[in-house]
Amino acid sequence: MLTDKAVVMKCKIIPSDLKAIINSISKIESDTLLLVVDNKVYSLLEQEMDIVQEIQNKGKKVILWKSSEGEKAKSFDEYQCCVEFFLEKGIHRNCHLVAIGGGATTDFGGFVASTLLRGIKWTCVPTTLLAMIDAGIGGKTGINSKSGKNLIGSFYLPENVYINTAFLQTLPQREISSGLGEMIKYSFLNRSIYEELIKGKDYKEQIINCAQFKQQIVEEDFLELKNRKFLNLGHTFGHGLERIYNIPHGIAVVWGMALIFKIIQEENYLSELRLLLDILKWQEVDPPWHNKRFPSKDLYDYISRDKKRTSRNSIDLILLDKIGTPKIEKFFLDDLEKKLDKHESKLRIFNLRSAGHIIF
Amino acid sequence: MLTDKAVVMKCKIIPSDLKAIINSISKIESDTLLLVVDNKVYSLLEQEMDIVQEIQNKGKKVILWKSSEGEKAKSFDEYQCCVEFFLEKGIHRNCHLVAIGGGATTDFGGFVASTLLRGIKWTCVPTTLLAMIDAGIGGKTGINSKSGKNLIGSFYLPENVYINTAFLQTLPQREISSGLGEMIKYSFLNRSIYEELIKGKDYKEQIINCAQFKQQIVEEDFLELKNRKFLNLGHTFGHGLERIYNIPHGIAVVWGMALIFKIIQEENYLSELRLLLDILKWQEVDPPWHNKRFPSKDLYDYISRDKKRTSRNSIDLILLDKIGTPKIEKFFLDDLEKKLDKHESKLRIFNLRSAGHIIF
Repeated sequence: MLTDKAVVMKCKIIPSDLKAIINSISKIESDTLLLVVDNKVYSLLEQEMDIVQEIQNKGKKVILWKSSEGEKAKSFDEYQCCVEFFLEKGIHRNCHLVAIGGGATTDFGGFVASTLLRGIKWTCVPTTLLAMIDAGIGGKTGINSKSGKNLIGSFYLPENVYINTAFLQTLPQREISSGLGEMIKYSFLNRSIYEELIKGKDYKEQIINCAQFKQQIVEEDFLELKNRKFLNLGHTFGHGLERIYNIPHGIAVVWGMALIFKIIQEENYLSELRLLLDILKWQEVDPPWHNKRFPSKDLYDYISRDKKRTSRNSIDLILLDKIGTPKIEKFFLDDLEKKLDKHESKLRIFNLRSAGHIIF
Repeated sequence: MLTDKAVVMKCKIIPSDLKAIINSISKIESDTLLLVVDNKVYSLLEQEMDIVQEIQNKGKKVILWKSSEGEKAKSFDEYQCCVEFFLEKGIHRNCHLVAIGGGATTDFGGFVASTLLRGIKWTCVPTTLLAMIDAGIGGKTGINSKSGKNLIGSFYLPENVYINTAFLQTLPQREISSGLGEMIKYSFLNRSIYEELIKGKDYKEQIINCAQFKQQIVEEDFLELKNRKFLNLGHTFGHGLERIYNIPHGIAVVWGMALIFKIIQEENYLSELRLLLDILKWQEVDPPWHNKRFPSKDLYDYISRDKKRTSRNSIDLILLDKIGTPKIEKFFLDDLEKKLDKHESKLRIFNLRSAGHIIF
């Protein structure tokens, strides 16, 4: 049991470059660091410096786990192997884990940290846009179950988050889009982020704002009993679409928000969504079900198993009162099923092309 | 990261009989209860009542996981199967897990609860003496690793602990002894428990006192950063002996305390320990290495991997200043190794026979 009051804790979010990150890591108060690094990220970093050697040169013992690329790390098998690997090395409670990679790696590394010796401290070094503004912030850790993503995990804040936007230079465009999807979500939750984006400011300048906005909400409601739920805007449908089509998380969240605005909010906020996508030069304007049947049944089946359900028959959805002012509304699963069925044919031709090109 | 301040939380410890326990469980605020019951305990309970049916009759949905007997449940395999089983049933965040069994089952059930959907509430129904006064109290949950016991887990308090001493009627004598081992430990940490036992009061009357004493320490220091460490009196050596000889936890703790008193505290408190054992009609007066070589090397190897180490070279041991006043002292592993080697031959003939029969 953790009560809401349980959490008077802060993590430091520090913008940093790689050299400064290595310096900071080397100063962590622990004689032994457990590095969990995404395999692909490790190869990229290796071209710049041997991070293990650099940290060891500064007097730390380093134990390295190269984790499977991205989401593949979040399996039971990898979790078991990684935990047994570290334990076999004879680690102690003051060891400190450092997770370096995208959101999957930081989710995975955080979960390992939270369960090793009943929890050791950890630091998060996100290398993707999505992880910098969302997955790496707020201490939601976890791995995937056969029944769905992130169904096994813990709430476990890192001590530090080091954000180095230079990592984004090697990030594929689709991963950037995925991060932008979450940034767009923040802009609907926070009027000042919305306005900065509408002004056409470079999204990179919004990264720390987004991370800090999320951190602030997390500090107020660590266990997602109240306002932290707002961060799930677009996620109920989004998670389903992510699973059904195997598309990046943030892209699925954009479609999840689009569905909320279209089906539940009577098309409100769709024009603002299109405007933001236009400004951010968003490419993925056609939905994953483009030219196919909208998957209302599969989506409903997924939602009815969503871990955010609060009872057998209902689910809380996040809606907008206005931009910057979200609200929570309870929906009966039966009603949601009817709404999906009702819109199925209209959704077939739905898209998010900019206002100038709406076919719909 | 959880800070010490993080935990302003309480669990209720309620003495109860089986019928009252079922009634209380049926009143838990959740539409769905996940029961994790030790297989053997389930068979015993079945003779008295069909607990699943009883709870369902009171309007709850019940999902039952019969866990492998005792310590066998605390494997990665069982953890994975159990978590996937519950998730497949489509559970939600307001589900409440109830763990019924000995310490292994409550450790296991608590860990499942702490990681399902990032943590659901849980209730602990200990059925052994050890679990009633120790394992079931305080929210240490976990499973075993190839490298040692309880190395994977979390700090996760139950909402309720229901203690029914009638469960002890079917408990084997060795399991009672194991619980008494922990009770003896409490008596060295708390003068009033010591005095009650010395007076010859029935140990059953001390169960709630012990549970509440532990709960109080836990509330003051949930994450074992300060005084909760005192509860580890006898455990550093005890865990090693438990592993080496595969003996019940509380029995190993008695030998762990005996070693601390003999090797580190220059034989102080050994007479009090013998007196308590005598009063409690303790049977296991010969050590597990009786008539064999004392396993100093194996024990040292185990200790040097203990998760309570706080650095590469040292470990904190709990000692007594006087009865009821424990203290923490840091020992270098090298020094501990020397002490074990030095005492190896003397320990060969060491035992805990009562003062009248000391051979030593």
